[in-house]
Amino acid sequence: MCGIIGYIGKRPVLPILIEGLERLEYRGYDSAGIALMNAKREINVLKVKGKIKDLKVKVENDGYWWSNNHNFHIGLGHTRWATHGRPCEKNAHPHLDCKGKIALVHNGIIENYKKLKEFLISKGHRFNSDTDTEVLAHLIEEFMDGSLEDAVKNALKKVKGSYAIGVISIDDPNKIVAARNESPLIIGIGNNEYFLASDVPAILNYTRGVIYIEDGELVVLDKKGFKICPLRRKREVKKDIVKISWDVASIEKNGYDHFMLKEIYEQPKAIRDTIKAKVCNGKILLDEINLSPKELRKIKKVFIVACGTSYHAALIGKYMLEKLCLVPVEVDIASEFRYRSPLLDKNSLVIAISQSGETADTLGAIAYAKNKESKIISICNVVGSSITRCSQGTIYTHAGPEIGVASTKAFTTQLAALYLFCLYLGSIKGLIDQKTCKRCLKALEKIPEDADTILKRASELDELANLFYKKSNFLYLGRGINYPIALEGALKLKEISYIHAEGYPAGEMKHGPIALIDSSLPVVILIPKNQLYEKIISNMEEVKSRGGIVIAIAIEGDKNIIEKADHVFYVPKVLNELTPILFTIPLQLLAYYIAVKRGCDVDKPRNLAKSVTVE
Amino acid sequence: MCGIIGYIGKRPVLPILIEGLERLEYRGYDSAGIALMNAKREINVLKVKGKIKDLKVKVENDGYWWSNNHNFHIGLGHTRWATHGRPCEKNAHPHLDCKGKIALVHNGIIENYKKLKEFLISKGHRFNSDTDTEVLAHLIEEFMDGSLEDAVKNALKKVKGSYAIGVISIDDPNKIVAARNESPLIIGIGNNEYFLASDVPAILNYTRGVIYIEDGELVVLDKKGFKICPLRRKREVKKDIVKISWDVASIEKNGYDHFMLKEIYEQPKAIRDTIKAKVCNGKILLDEINLSPKELRKIKKVFIVACGTSYHAALIGKYMLEKLCLVPVEVDIASEFRYRSPLLDKNSLVIAISQSGETADTLGAIAYAKNKESKIISICNVVGSSITRCSQGTIYTHAGPEIGVASTKAFTTQLAALYLFCLYLGSIKGLIDQKTCKRCLKALEKIPEDADTILKRASELDELANLFYKKSNFLYLGRGINYPIALEGALKLKEISYIHAEGYPAGEMKHGPIALIDSSLPVVILIPKNQLYEKIISNMEEVKSRGGIVIAIAIEGDKNIIEKADHVFYVPKVLNELTPILFTIPLQLLAYYIAVKRGCDVDKPRNLAKSVTVE
Repeated sequence: MCGIIGYIGKRPVLPILIEGLERLEYRGYDSAGIALMNAKREINVLKVKGKIKDLKVKVENDGYWWSNNHNFHIGLGHTRWATHGRPCEKNAHPHLDCKGKIALVHNGIIENYKKLKEFLISKGHRFNSDTDTEVLAHLIEEFMDGSLEDAVKNALKKVKGSYAIGVISIDDPNKIVAARNESPLIIGIGNNEYFLASDVPAILNYTRGVIYIEDGELVVLDKKGFKICPLRRKREVKKDIVKISWDVASIEKNGYDHFMLKEIYEQPKAIRDTIKAKVCNGKILLDEINLSPKELRKIKKVFIVACGTSYHAALIGKYMLEKLCLVPVEVDIASEFRYRSPLLDKNSLVIAISQSGETADTLGAIAYAKNKESKIISICNVVGSSITRCSQGTIYTHAGPEIGVASTKAFTTQLAALYLFCLYLGSIKGLIDQKTCKRCLKALEKIPEDADTILKRASELDELANLFYKKSNFLYLGRGINYPIALEGALKLKEISYIHAEGYPAGEMKHGPIALIDSSLPVVILIPKNQLYEKIISNMEEVKSRGGIVIAIAIEGDKNIIEKADHVFYVPKVLNELTPILFTIPLQLLAYYIAVKRGCDVDKPRNLAKSVTVE
Repeated sequence: MCGIIGYIGKRPVLPILIEGLERLEYRGYDSAGIALMNAKREINVLKVKGKIKDLKVKVENDGYWWSNNHNFHIGLGHTRWATHGRPCEKNAHPHLDCKGKIALVHNGIIENYKKLKEFLISKGHRFNSDTDTEVLAHLIEEFMDGSLEDAVKNALKKVKGSYAIGVISIDDPNKIVAARNESPLIIGIGNNEYFLASDVPAILNYTRGVIYIEDGELVVLDKKGFKICPLRRKREVKKDIVKISWDVASIEKNGYDHFMLKEIYEQPKAIRDTIKAKVCNGKILLDEINLSPKELRKIKKVFIVACGTSYHAALIGKYMLEKLCLVPVEVDIASEFRYRSPLLDKNSLVIAISQSGETADTLGAIAYAKNKESKIISICNVVGSSITRCSQGTIYTHAGPEIGVASTKAFTTQLAALYLFCLYLGSIKGLIDQKTCKRCLKALEKIPEDADTILKRASELDELANLFYKKSNFLYLGRGINYPIALEGALKLKEISYIHAEGYPAGEMKHGPIALIDSSLPVVILIPKNQLYEKIISNMEEVKSRGGIVIAIAIEGDKNIIEKADHVFYVPKVLNELTPILFTIPLQLLAYYIAVKRGCDVDKPRNLAKSVTVE
């Protein structure tokens, strides 16, 4: 999970690399580096432990770089998220071969790097880092015989693992060679200038013409053009240039202290946009899934695969689909799915959920399902991303770019999308009549307004955060359709405040985690007004009678709670299936305010990356 | 989750109640009390906050009790596990009516107690406690008109919830009235003396003749006999007396510091006994499930329901059944199961797993499944317990009584039982040939020996505990069939040491919990030698490169691990499906030693009860 940027063209490369890395920083930011080549066939490398701002400082302090700015027109940059070897200067990319003739940046994991390293050492190569990546540089050196693309091709034949790489060499200068397997990579097409990047925003200030590189493809960029050919064949392939319509400005913070807060506040609009795109005159239109009513009726079983926050949306999808559509659903953490022999076939529908559409684990799960001839659709926020390209159809969430590492608006729009899909499928199967469907749609369409009501009371959660931000542990409890929201609330807090928070089904607490409860433990309990109300009140009493501090998230008008809980935050009354969307918002805000008060870097929490493109 | 004891007969009742309560203490121990009635129709009550030993001290200190020992021949006792109202003297049972004429003990939860309390207050009743139970005493007072059994019958008609109760009254002396709904209750039949108890061990020193009371039954015990009749009808029912063959001595600690440690060491024998009971001449005999091969072949889907540690066994069962028997399996936390509209029918098999066979949540799940006409079998350790009586058949684990609240030998025998069931079903379905079955059985039969090998190296884990017992957080990681063992390792530590430990699928860590990792966090990683080996090594590197402390549980001979992990504990090499049994044992020991070093009460952790008989 690293960010790669590359440039070849007429402009000075240094500022392009630095700007690109800043835009890719969401992919990792524990160390960074650049390698530039000049007309005299010299490669200059600069690395730093830390974030891109530290790289900038180092460039400023060393006069050489700016004074030679106009001599460098080819270069590679990298921002790292460590997998092998701790974050430090020597492990930062780019990595060089023995003689410093080849420079390489890499995103992914080389699984057989130990064997390769032993082989290369036996051949006399000397290694400078603890990374898996460095073997690639030496392996290419081993095969280098004039043509850089041939050397890269031959080297990659020996490699097992995932990669997106960019390589330059002084023995075959004036080109960048790149390749991809299971890690994202795009090229940007300018006017006699070409870009290489892990993601679109990195190059959006220079060009809007983009080509998505696929697994097994090798790219050669030079000043006059580009060439894409399969790694295992000679023949060149022709690919369409995609026109990107987003605006870089829409990725800015817009007056909020953090992207995360901005994105929390964007939820009413994001949910409204997602509904609007799929509902017309009270009818749900989901042509985008590319499955006919006949195909949908044939589905015997649904598997939903996802990671992290999207996995919590998947769990809620199971409740909805089984209840409203009477179809059995299995939910899997994507990294577990393909290794547990799941029993799927051509009558199964796999729904992959991912904000970025680049999550490697989810891509792996899709590949497995494809092999079993299952139907595959995705719920995704990024148009044209890898996952959407592997799916028969995609229900797009219209949340707009999500920059904060902790997912917020992507999650609530995923829930809205899942609910729409349930109503659509239930109607097609004849389980939901028109009148019921209209009533449910109306309830969903009111959600953005309800979300606004909650956001207007954000200060209550800020005050609660004041009381609890020094705590080192939290418990979150929910039942039924809101149990996944307990997991999500705990994950948010964990991700951005580093407080050890855990979610549990409230009824299961007494089978173990209740041992943790004492007078120092805050317990957040989700209390909808449904048939489980009395049971969850009993669970709350179990916490209270052991001295735990109860923070209740309850439904407006539930006065009974005030005398029982220590703190109460109310959300508006909605249909039971929609409570998860509303319960999530106060938990996002609580986590946010706690993290800010603890002085954490909310948008870039330690160790995490926005889109996890390694397995 | 409380313990009830009652006695009527010729002997002094005080020592019988105290001994019974001591044997029931595993059901809860935050407060306790007794109520004795003498021939002069006086009821004397004594209550205490704390454990049974505190009750004994109070009895000793107050000369009255022993000096009047021979005057009391009827009495009730109770040890409490709080649900409504914190543990304190006034909330301890027995509870009295307004005039102190009726005394009552209760196990369960009265769900409509708030409404009942308002009604009774409007009738002039005065309440002394915050419990749900006290309403029962006043409700019986309200209906009392000469006959205690009639008053109890009429009172219970108004009650919604679960209960096992025992009641005495000075207005209808010389009898104990008892009743049950969804909480366990037995009566013991002596020679002109009768016992009431939540569980058999409480009375085993006095009688071995026992009758299991069912839901909706009312019991009247007097000095001459007993009477059982349905709550809603007049007609008396005749029930068989069950002869109990266990030995009380087998429940003693046998030289170990704690029951838990004794039970960890009993695992080789427990697993061996479980296998022996079901395997004869290389053939698996599972007649006890009461399902014909034809019925088994018809099963289209399996649901496994369980709570706590048994839930982890259920998760492993899913891996095994889907892989070896190609039958789709859903696993549910029992308290969630019946509230999420699971799609089961008469072609579904429900497997309920419970050590005690009295887990209320699991009983609730069975009741739901029965309603859907699904087939139900159980995996259980207590012969004749409620769950076994609701099941068509039971695969008994032969672990012997488990007293330590944290389950150990029950869990590993559940895994052995599940594996045997898989081999049995797979053979019947023609998916496992005789040769393979024999090979797998041989591997299983070697497990007790492998477990012994691990136990002989327990001191290594004691040393590890020395390094880590002051930590406040732990992470446990596993993949595939060993992911549930990561959950189980974390639960063990949480239950007995009160350290906040959490289990995660190793591949999911990077999607959130990785934010918790710093140089103070110990991370236990389970590393089998299977097709996921390289992937889990990558996950371990992710932890290492962020400074986490890695404790690896690995397979004997894996030398690669030594240079990567900070600490390694080896277990013998076994079939992949059996690694969970062996990986569990070092995690049990690690949790045990850490808890002991922290000065925790290992066998009776705070807030927990051995068998959770409330929802």
